[in-house]
Amino acid sequence: MKIGKLNIFKVFIIGMTTVSFIQAQKEPMVIQDQGSFAVGGTVKSNPGTFDAIKRGPEGQTFHGDHAYIFYQIPINARKHPLVMWHGIGQFSKTWETTPDGREGYQNIFLRRGFSTYIMDQPRRGRAGKSMAEATIVPNPDEQFWFNIFRVGVWPDYFPGVQFAQDEETLNQYFRQITPNIGGFDTEVITDAASQLFDKIGDGVLVTHSHSGGFGWATAMKNEKVKAIVSYEPGSGFPFPEGEVPEPIESSAGALRAVGVAKKEFLKLTKIPIVIYYGDFIPKEYDPNPGTDGWRVRLEMARKWRDVVNKHGGDVTVVHLPEVGIKGNTHFPFSDLNNVKVADLMSDWLKEKELD
Amino acid sequence: MKIGKLNIFKVFIIGMTTVSFIQAQKEPMVIQDQGSFAVGGTVKSNPGTFDAIKRGPEGQTFHGDHAYIFYQIPINARKHPLVMWHGIGQFSKTWETTPDGREGYQNIFLRRGFSTYIMDQPRRGRAGKSMAEATIVPNPDEQFWFNIFRVGVWPDYFPGVQFAQDEETLNQYFRQITPNIGGFDTEVITDAASQLFDKIGDGVLVTHSHSGGFGWATAMKNEKVKAIVSYEPGSGFPFPEGEVPEPIESSAGALRAVGVAKKEFLKLTKIPIVIYYGDFIPKEYDPNPGTDGWRVRLEMARKWRDVVNKHGGDVTVVHLPEVGIKGNTHFPFSDLNNVKVADLMSDWLKEKELD
Repeated sequence: MKIGKLNIFKVFIIGMTTVSFIQAQKEPMVIQDQGSFAVGGTVKSNPGTFDAIKRGPEGQTFHGDHAYIFYQIPINARKHPLVMWHGIGQFSKTWETTPDGREGYQNIFLRRGFSTYIMDQPRRGRAGKSMAEATIVPNPDEQFWFNIFRVGVWPDYFPGVQFAQDEETLNQYFRQITPNIGGFDTEVITDAASQLFDKIGDGVLVTHSHSGGFGWATAMKNEKVKAIVSYEPGSGFPFPEGEVPEPIESSAGALRAVGVAKKEFLKLTKIPIVIYYGDFIPKEYDPNPGTDGWRVRLEMARKWRDVVNKHGGDVTVVHLPEVGIKGNTHFPFSDLNNVKVADLMSDWLKEKELD
Repeated sequence: MKIGKLNIFKVFIIGMTTVSFIQAQKEPMVIQDQGSFAVGGTVKSNPGTFDAIKRGPEGQTFHGDHAYIFYQIPINARKHPLVMWHGIGQFSKTWETTPDGREGYQNIFLRRGFSTYIMDQPRRGRAGKSMAEATIVPNPDEQFWFNIFRVGVWPDYFPGVQFAQDEETLNQYFRQITPNIGGFDTEVITDAASQLFDKIGDGVLVTHSHSGGFGWATAMKNEKVKAIVSYEPGSGFPFPEGEVPEPIESSAGALRAVGVAKKEFLKLTKIPIVIYYGDFIPKEYDPNPGTDGWRVRLEMARKWRDVVNKHGGDVTVVHLPEVGIKGNTHFPFSDLNNVKVADLMSDWLKEKELD
């Protein structure tokens, strides 16, 4: 903002010689429409009749368990909108300004002409009105997440990590965690996501971590999910019954696959899927569960790719360091090199004729 | 969105004769910058050293009690940004798409060239990471709020109310309620709001209901609050000690004023302030506490105006029906006539040379 004001000032004072300054600024975003809505959820009602004077519980209702969406549609939007879905302990912030203050996927893909639908899943963030009672306790746990999110091994950062190492970045990063209000209910969560696609029509689902598993389940529920881009999916890989692999052991515990009816599984062979994993994932057993959990998730993702593709699917697993993109944490889309990471996604969307 | 596609289609098929269709659509919003950040809050730390293998509580931190801001800066923005602050039980949604799907103040004032900073106060919505433990219970209470928000006397709507009476509007309206995660802590809340003004500089604060009281307190903390537009402030009117009026009785209970040091109070005489109240506020005692609570708030607002102005201030109280704007609920800025309500605010900002 300060750079912007300075540039405008310079234009008035110095004139046309400063055009290069203006060009160094980002172009404005031209938005045809933006707004928000709740989607999905249920209602419960108390028996009886509400009394306006006594104001007791009788006859009152409670609407909850919806998802919450903020959308932006640029002028001349591309055909398929992107539905962006956060991971565990996170909310829509995942896709907005990065912890170090740069543009995240919300702006990057808006600038590239995509409509964006940024979701808070039921019981999280702006969708906090939960049908389940919950006790929320402020237990210090941020070093646990720092390690699982592969920024480093607290208090050290990984060498070459694509994460700014100043205090304010870490402050913003820890404040983008938010509690779950009530337990995870996969049906509630994926019903809301599926109803979002019913409302907006065909689109591309972009998932992260925990929403990876919810994303596969949503695509099995709704054929309007035309493709999935999944960053570091964590669990819930669905295999056809009879082909479910053994759990894979790690120092973070055993990672189990999920068995689903083959008819359901086959729906995932009908759409293109790409999965990305970042850096600092060990090749062999690591006693640090923060990293070792990702070794087995990457292994499971590859097993899953093989089974889906054997049945006629189109799944690609990209381990970023193997294509020369190094230093990424669990959040490649907000890391320092996120424009390069976004370019890779753009290329894939183009290749699959989804843009 | 469907209308937009139809128009573009028509342009291609029929040509320039359809220009009038295009003009009926809204102009796009041209945004120089948009993003989000956390501001304010505190940190607590467990003693000891974090162990990456055992992952116990020792040495871990917890960041919480910040506010959360989503901002948009249009090209050629006006001098003062608008900081929009929701009321009780609500979050940033208050200012976004209305329950019936029209544009709220976020878009209306962006289109009018104002930068907007939409806040979720600490312990609410996207700022849900609370330093206070909380148990959240999904108790049905929506009819209670329907009446307090003066949509009607459940299940009836007020005659002439500026609120769409279809089922989906009510569904969206009830889903824009969200729980408070932990109790209200005025210091925590107003510290975060004050730090927002430290970060962005001079601005105009736009409050609603519960944030009305927090708004007066924030303006006493930070002189970068250059004006306040307050919709239906509920409580917390600060009078100089020695001039605090008696509580005013209503069927909703007694409304009490707050006493503050005169030096603090006088800060509120240095900025222009406008207060708006909507319709359906009884002139005399009403046994329905949903409406009667507003009779005494309007009365208290007028007492407060008189005392601030007596000390050299510039407070205006506008009871909308008295200037011919009828049918408004507790949410005039999202009611069916919200463009007219926004026009009134624009006129006031212009009159005070704040635009």
